Amino acid sequence: MEKELQQLLEECISLSSEQDLETLQVVLSGVKNKLTGKNSTFIDGLLHMDRRLDNESCEIDIPITKMLDNTLGIVHGGFTATVLDTAMGTLANKILPEGYAAVTSQLNIHYLSPGIGKRLHCKATIVHKGRSTVVVEADVLRSDGKKIAHSSGSFFVVEKQHK
Amino acid sequence: MEKELQQLLEECISLSSEQDLETLQVVLSGVKNKLTGKNSTFIDGLLHMDRRLDNESCEIDIPITKMLDNTLGIVHGGFTATVLDTAMGTLANKILPEGYAAVTSQLNIHYLSPGIGKRLHCKATIVHKGRSTVVVEADVLRSDGKKIAHSSGSFFVVEKQHK
Amino acid sequence: MEKELQQLLEECISLSSEQDLETLQVVLSGVKNKLTGKNSTFIDGLLHMDRRLDNESCEIDIPITKMLDNTLGIVHGGFTATVLDTAMGTLANKILPEGYAAVTSQLNIHYLSPGIGKRLHCKATIVHKGRSTVVVEADVLRSDGKKIAHSSGSFFVVEKQHK
Amino acid sequence: MEKELQQLLEECISLSSEQDLETLQVVLSGVKNKLTGKNSTFIDGLLHMDRRLDNESCEIDIPITKMLDNTLGIVHGGFTATVLDTAMGTLANKILPEGYAAVTSQLNIHYLSPGIGKRLHCKATIVHKGRSTVVVEADVLRSDGKKIAHSSGSFFVVEKQHK
Repeated sequence: MEKELQQLLEECISLSSEQDLETLQVVLSGVKNKLTGKNSTFIDGLLHMDRRLDNESCEIDIPITKMLDNTLGIVHGGFTATVLDTAMGTLANKILPEGYAAVTSQLNIHYLSPGIGKRLHCKATIVHKGRSTVVVEADVLRSDGKKIAHSSGSFFVVEKQHK
Repeated sequence: MEKELQQLLEECISLSSEQDLETLQVVLSGVKNKLTGKNSTFIDGLLHMDRRLDNESCEIDIPITKMLDNTLGIVHGGFTATVLDTAMGTLANKILPEGYAAVTSQLNIHYLSPGIGKRLHCKATIVHKGRSTVVVEADVLRSDGKKIAHSSGSFFVVEKQHK
Repeated sequence: MEKELQQLLEECISLSSEQDLETLQVVLSGVKNKLTGKNSTFIDGLLHMDRRLDNESCEIDIPITKMLDNTLGIVHGGFTATVLDTAMGTLANKILPEGYAAVTSQLNIHYLSPGIGKRLHCKATIVHKGRSTVVVEADVLRSDGKKIAHSSGSFFVVEKQHK
Repeated sequence: MEKELQQLLEECISLSSEQDLETLQVVLSGVKNKLTGKNSTFIDGLLHMDRRLDNESCEIDIPITKMLDNTLGIVHGGFTATVLDTAMGTLANKILPEGYAAVTSQLNIHYLSPGIGKRLHCKATIVHKGRSTVVVEADVLRSDGKKIAHSSGSFFVVEKQHK
């Protein structure tokens, strides 16, 4: 497998423009983020998420890279959704008692402006904490302060399975 | 840069379990998908999207890999959102006249069941085609036929900028 | 109270245009619909709902009257929401076993065209039936066949309280 | 017509319990609210809406009456939606320049707790003001301070038709 991976990288390098090489760097260092434990999942690593969490809010910052582009050259709405869902889900889980987990049951996103610039900043806060559902809302802002998305999500509270 | 990339890969390999090596393979061949032009964006490539499109529907298939995992070990809702937004957006753009593009203005997703198994299949169809907005809906199904998400999205019709 | 009601009606009549008198007729016969048991709630009665229900779908027809107008002279989006929620909720409850009820937890509505013409027709169908949630979708159409709204809703399954 | 209306009222009175007579009073005085110009539409009148509006927010209070009941004896989600849509739409229209109107294009509502008690209070605030869309959010609270609904809506900006 090791040989195969090295060869795959060579192929990618040979096909790459200068900018593509930078994206390759973003991707591989993103994988490394997960493997070193800096991030807990591959998607968090690939997006180079920087996260702050307390009982009131969850904030996530990510750099905007070419990896995030949709066909129009702006951040793909799916990545914006990923950052929103991660921030809201992390916060929903944070406020639950031991032994319970929150899973997304409904996600609503208003896309307001194109995702461009250097970085995105997401902040999630609690709307409602019920026995069986938690409702959270979150905004995503660009470096210039412009809001690019507003979202609300409903999370279902489930008992964690014993392993 | 080339040297740096090779070294980064070595670091990743040395940190990897057997399963992580497979994920590295998924990631690098995903980047290659974009660089060879098989997919039009890095995210489409990384997700190894297989797409069929006509005037009535857009269908996308992706393999489920460890790269897609959230912290609970099931497909991250952000990836499900990415596949949905891509299928719906591709279809919305398909039905517009020359010179116009559709950008997501609102996305609503009901998450129904955990994303597990071998593959995900997404199918988007048109709900409404207006002058200034297109509304699309889409489902995501697992290999066992179970529906894991139902979504609707509103797309804003904009004139394409001349370059 | 009886005297007071008669006087209130006289005041309304004296303030009414020809068209307002018709609206008064719609309102009072709507109240009567509830009192005679033809409809089960005042809102169903006031909207003169005509309902068909089986295990696959719930359909509701209502006449468009001046009572439904918003400030622009078209059907108020709140009434469209009421018909949608009623049709979806009725269907969600229909498919549950004895002793359980479905309560709306999330409602998403895309408004597509102005509500004008003679009548509105709403049809709701099941998207997903889970243990704890039911997801339903519904459309509202005008007499001329144009779709004016597309909606999906998530219903939470609760045990009915014994009285 | 006048005779017919009086007879209709007599029928309603004869079918009514003490509580139903109160609902009749709510309904007729609601119609009067519209006819005297106290409210601008029949639905605003029927719901006995009390409204405060400035450039930052729109607040609406309504009394909870039997007229609002769904089949479970709590406020019908359609009425909650009506109050939300009215508050958000009023605010969206308020901030537009002369000659423009805002029409609801998408409405998302999270229902959080049952609508019970004496009154409902709704407050809408602006999330985003763009050239072609305005996004607004709103909460509905009960007299005891409990939040019963959280909502966001997208409004499409249209040029008013000259008459």
